[in-house]
Amino acid sequence: MIYRNYLEPLCQNAKEASKKLANLSTAVKNNVLFTVAELLVKHEKEILQENLKDLENARGQNLEAAKIERLTLNRKRIEEMAAGLKEVAALPDPIGEILQMQKRPNGMMVGQMTVPIGLIAIIFESRPNVTIDSASLCLKSGNGVILKGGSEALHSNQKLIGLFSEALKAYNIPEGAVTFINQNKREVTAELLKMDNFIDLVIPRGGEGLIKMVTETSRIPVIKHDKGLCHIYVDSEANLEMAMKIALNAKTQRPGTCNAMETLLIHQKSAPLLLPDLLDKLNQKGVEIRGCPETQKYGEFVKPANETDYHTEFLDLILSIKVVSSIEEAMIHIDKYGSCHTESIITESYSQGIRFINEVDASAVMINASTRLNDGYQFGLGAEIGISTSRIHARGPMGLKELTSKKFVVFGSGQIRE
Amino acid sequence: MIYRNYLEPLCQNAKEASKKLANLSTAVKNNVLFTVAELLVKHEKEILQENLKDLENARGQNLEAAKIERLTLNRKRIEEMAAGLKEVAALPDPIGEILQMQKRPNGMMVGQMTVPIGLIAIIFESRPNVTIDSASLCLKSGNGVILKGGSEALHSNQKLIGLFSEALKAYNIPEGAVTFINQNKREVTAELLKMDNFIDLVIPRGGEGLIKMVTETSRIPVIKHDKGLCHIYVDSEANLEMAMKIALNAKTQRPGTCNAMETLLIHQKSAPLLLPDLLDKLNQKGVEIRGCPETQKYGEFVKPANETDYHTEFLDLILSIKVVSSIEEAMIHIDKYGSCHTESIITESYSQGIRFINEVDASAVMINASTRLNDGYQFGLGAEIGISTSRIHARGPMGLKELTSKKFVVFGSGQIRE
Repeated sequence: MIYRNYLEPLCQNAKEASKKLANLSTAVKNNVLFTVAELLVKHEKEILQENLKDLENARGQNLEAAKIERLTLNRKRIEEMAAGLKEVAALPDPIGEILQMQKRPNGMMVGQMTVPIGLIAIIFESRPNVTIDSASLCLKSGNGVILKGGSEALHSNQKLIGLFSEALKAYNIPEGAVTFINQNKREVTAELLKMDNFIDLVIPRGGEGLIKMVTETSRIPVIKHDKGLCHIYVDSEANLEMAMKIALNAKTQRPGTCNAMETLLIHQKSAPLLLPDLLDKLNQKGVEIRGCPETQKYGEFVKPANETDYHTEFLDLILSIKVVSSIEEAMIHIDKYGSCHTESIITESYSQGIRFINEVDASAVMINASTRLNDGYQFGLGAEIGISTSRIHARGPMGLKELTSKKFVVFGSGQIRE
Repeated sequence: MIYRNYLEPLCQNAKEASKKLANLSTAVKNNVLFTVAELLVKHEKEILQENLKDLENARGQNLEAAKIERLTLNRKRIEEMAAGLKEVAALPDPIGEILQMQKRPNGMMVGQMTVPIGLIAIIFESRPNVTIDSASLCLKSGNGVILKGGSEALHSNQKLIGLFSEALKAYNIPEGAVTFINQNKREVTAELLKMDNFIDLVIPRGGEGLIKMVTETSRIPVIKHDKGLCHIYVDSEANLEMAMKIALNAKTQRPGTCNAMETLLIHQKSAPLLLPDLLDKLNQKGVEIRGCPETQKYGEFVKPANETDYHTEFLDLILSIKVVSSIEEAMIHIDKYGSCHTESIITESYSQGIRFINEVDASAVMINASTRLNDGYQFGLGAEIGISTSRIHARGPMGLKELTSKKFVVFGSGQIRE
């Protein structure tokens, strides 16, 4: 009840503000983004001071190194945030586009106009740059946003949101357009997820625990940003040089991301030609390899892979490898163990490639490309708010377009229903 | 637990079947639909016998006349169902279309391919024709479907699903592709809504109670088919003859539907010119009128409208009328009382029309057309599974296209992430 009393006026305020955003001109939205970019650079020192408070708390609580790294701001990261804001400003306004207008037999013209979704709640963990990214994408798409960041980044987030609010104020936009929740109890999140009379969409970004909690609790539609257990299948007719390059890239370029490869499947014909060299190179790069019995033949450092390994998103320099006898076996493995995130086949066979594209179910299915390329920038969406693992509304990288809804618009001349 | 034991194998079976559907050829899907159409006509007598059982039960339970009417099948309705199946067969296959393929700077080609959503659960009330409509649209879009109809139509639905299964069998499609739940307890629905490991989307079609229960309980994404509290605003610069024709149509052509007009807003300049005649005609057609004080001046039979009337979806021959002093007042009223379903302005003013289109938020916003036209067939989508009042994934009439998801497809030539 106490949380409801805290959240309700806040959500109502945000909803009211979001209605104002729907009809804001592109110029005003862009000017706000440019102003935030300026303010970030201007107030760099204060931002770093607040970030330092978070870092001290984090160290006091013995947070793991990877999390501290993600929490850390510095001049370069602040400049990147500012540059990101300018990039979003440069993207075309996604609102007000009319798609596929057609004239119906009765003479009325019918099309679909892109409109904002309304009020979006984003629940995320420690990275403070997500705060600015999310707020800027929501503003550009005319959506109000409620941000619920992790407690680790509380001071940094409050400072960043303060600067965003300053810019909104300068253009007479109600501050409720970007709302930050600084209560960090789990009960607050639970209560927030009941506010379906105000909030139109919830986007959780984080670990499995967070995603599970949100989908089980929420009365509001959810678009998940869940895990990626991605495979590369090296076919019998692969270009082996290409396979080598792509496998190394997909595993080692940034192993902690959701689109990194976790399991390599390789056709038995290609295995003896590729594995000796590939295993050596992976080993040199510090990758721990867990392989099927066949794989183990090609390197004494290969540990045995078990059922659990094939089910695990390592997010680390660990790779499962399995030799398969056919593309069918590979696709059955992907269907059983994959998370429908990113799947790639390396092949020179037209038929095998097209078959893989058609039959494999994932947010992105690729021929001869690294899974690491499943990304909003790489796919040409401009900025992205994350990679959706939902099947509804948005799947894969979510850009500005995926932050819109539609309304049918009808230009009539007196039509009635006969 | 007992319901879980009943539902789990059923859902698992349906999920497995849905995977087979994803890669079915268009010809096979269409042949199944043609076969069901034939079977319906061939087994007309048996269908009517089963329907009679439902009707007898319904009368025994003193079901209201309108519900009995919707439950009733006859030769004409069965022929309409068969014709509907052939229409769905004639629509283009929505699966496998690749949208907006572009070449990225690194040379990789990226597009988005339409794919089935997966397994869809449809929860609906008494109309048995919804069973065949839903099953045919889901099959054509490659989705598995679980149908949970109302207890009133149990015998009719079982018979209809039986015929659908027969057609699936004839083409070697697993029967799980169309699954009917014949347990009618509320607890079964509640348990079904937890099956998020199998079901990808829930579509509830029915009264407010059902919609509320589903949104509050479901762990699965929901696309609502909720109420319509629709307005027509007759502007100061309306063509009054057109306004008359549209208002009568929107209220009386089929008052029990979600896109019928419930409140007429009229500018004070147009009121004295339109209302005397319009009120008479509505009165002649048996429409009960509840008006603001200004409206009451134009007919002694006009009852006073109160706050509750403006909030009510009558679904009947009852109409609220309010005279307003400006388009702003009309839009504020719509924002406050409307359900974002269908809103129409009658005007000859270009500026007022465009303003209404841009600023009013609803699944369909119209100029000079009857709200009754917000419909899948009228909008050119072919068949529809209903009118979504959700803002996510589909808004307004939902046709075959809205029953699809997407996957990114990448045709690469060795690209890696730099």
